[in-house]
Amino acid sequence: MTFQLQPGERLDDLQVNSYRIIQSHQVFSFSLDAVLLAHYVSLRNRDRVIDLGTGNGVIPLLLAARSSAERGEIVGLEIQERLADMARRNVEGNGLQQMIRIVHGDTREAVQTFGNESFDLVVCNPPYRPAGVGDQSLNDHVKIAKHEITCTLEQAVAAAAGLVRYEGKVAFVHRPDRLADLIATMRAQKLEPKRMMLVHPRPDKRPNILLIEAIKGGRPELRIDPPLIVHQEDGSYSKEILDIYAGRGGLVRG
Amino acid sequence: MTFQLQPGERLDDLQVNSYRIIQSHQVFSFSLDAVLLAHYVSLRNRDRVIDLGTGNGVIPLLLAARSSAERGEIVGLEIQERLADMARRNVEGNGLQQMIRIVHGDTREAVQTFGNESFDLVVCNPPYRPAGVGDQSLNDHVKIAKHEITCTLEQAVAAAAGLVRYEGKVAFVHRPDRLADLIATMRAQKLEPKRMMLVHPRPDKRPNILLIEAIKGGRPELRIDPPLIVHQEDGSYSKEILDIYAGRGGLVRG
Repeated sequence: MTFQLQPGERLDDLQVNSYRIIQSHQVFSFSLDAVLLAHYVSLRNRDRVIDLGTGNGVIPLLLAARSSAERGEIVGLEIQERLADMARRNVEGNGLQQMIRIVHGDTREAVQTFGNESFDLVVCNPPYRPAGVGDQSLNDHVKIAKHEITCTLEQAVAAAAGLVRYEGKVAFVHRPDRLADLIATMRAQKLEPKRMMLVHPRPDKRPNILLIEAIKGGRPELRIDPPLIVHQEDGSYSKEILDIYAGRGGLVRG
Repeated sequence: MTFQLQPGERLDDLQVNSYRIIQSHQVFSFSLDAVLLAHYVSLRNRDRVIDLGTGNGVIPLLLAARSSAERGEIVGLEIQERLADMARRNVEGNGLQQMIRIVHGDTREAVQTFGNESFDLVVCNPPYRPAGVGDQSLNDHVKIAKHEITCTLEQAVAAAAGLVRYEGKVAFVHRPDRLADLIATMRAQKLEPKRMMLVHPRPDKRPNILLIEAIKGGRPELRIDPPLIVHQEDGSYSKEILDIYAGRGGLVRG
C-alpha cells in the first residue's frame, strides 16, 4: 500500500487492521471524539452509511475496520477540497476503494445530492464551536473543521434526518453542554434519541464528550450507558480506552 | 415536639437538624430520589418555593434543613388528602409551621390556585411510571404516588413553568430513560435545562436516577456534573451518599 503525502503531512498508525492514516497538524488531525463515535455507533454489515464532514476520513476507515468484506458502501462527505483529497488518499492507501467513497460536497445540500432516505446509518462529528468565537488565530482548514461556519448543529441534524431511512440510525458526537440543543433538534426532525454515553476525562470530572444515537421514528425511551472514563485516578488511560485504541474492543454495551 | 401517628405509621429519624418524619409502608415512604433532589437544587434563602406532589413532605423538610430562620415560604402541594395530612403532621411535629405550608390540591390546577409566576423555585419528584403498567397490585395511595394517574410528566412540567417567575428555577428528579421527554417538554415551556446529574447504582452500571434543573428563559448551555455513584465496587455506600444521608454535604458542585 502506498500513501501519497503532501508537504506538512505525516503518516500515522491507526492501530486497527494495519491501517495507516495521513494527518496534518496544519490541516486536519483526528481526535478521540471521532474514534469513540466510530466505536459507539450500532453498525450492521449491510448498512449503507454516510459520514457527514468526514475530514481525513478517519471515521469511514474505523467503520471499515469493524466490517467484513461484504459491507454496504460507506460515503464520506467533506466540504473542504483539501481534506476530501486527503481522505481519498487515505482510502486508496489502505486499499479500501471498494468499501469507501469520498465525496467533495456540502452537508447542507446532501439530501439533494444523495436523495431522501438513502442511507441506513448517518454519523456525524460536526464542528463544535460557534462561528467567530476564538477562531481568529486559526487557519481556514481548522476553522471550518472546528467552528460552525459552513454547517451549524441544526443544519447537520436536518441533513442527517433527511438522509436516513425510516427506522434507520443517526449518531452524533458533540460537547455535553449542547445536549439539550441536540435532543430538541433531533426530536423536531423525528429522530428519537435511544442511546447515549458521557465521556469523562477522570471519574470525578464533568464529561467533555457526548455520544448519542437516535432512530428515525423511534419510540421515546433513552438508554444512558455507564460513564466512560478516559483517565484513571493515577492519570493513566483506563482499560476501556486502551482497548479502543488497540482495536480490541468497542463501545456497544449490553 | 410531638408527632401524632395513625395506625400503620412509624416515626423515622431524618438525620438532619434532629428532624423526624412520619412514614408508612402502606401509604407513603420517601426514596433516595427525593433526598437527592432536595440536596441538588440551587436554593437561596429568600426563595419562595413550591414542591409539587410533596407526599409526606420530605422535600420541604430537607429544604428547611438547608435554610436559615428568615427563609421564604415553602409550599408543599399534595393531591391525596391522606398524604397531605401526614405531611402537615410532619411539619407540626418538627415545629416548622412558620416555614412550610402544606396545601391539599391538584398540581394540574396549581397555576390557578397560586397564581402565575408566583414562585422563585419549583421542585418536583413526579410519579415515574405510566398509568396502568404494573399498578394493579398496589393500593390507591401508592398507585397515585408512583404512576402517572393524576399527573403526567407533561402536566407537571407545564405547572412548574407556569408557577415559576422569569429567571426562576425548576428542578425535577426522574428516570434517565425519560431524559429526552423531559428536555423536550421543558424547552417547549421555555424552561432551559442548565444543570444535570446522573446517579449510578455502581460505577459500571447504567444510571437509574436523573436530576435536572432548568431556568425559565435561560440561555442554552447545559452543565452536566460528574456522575454520582451510590455504591462502591465492594457494595458499600460511597462517601458522597454517606455525607448526604448524614446531612454533612450537598450536591451543589463547583
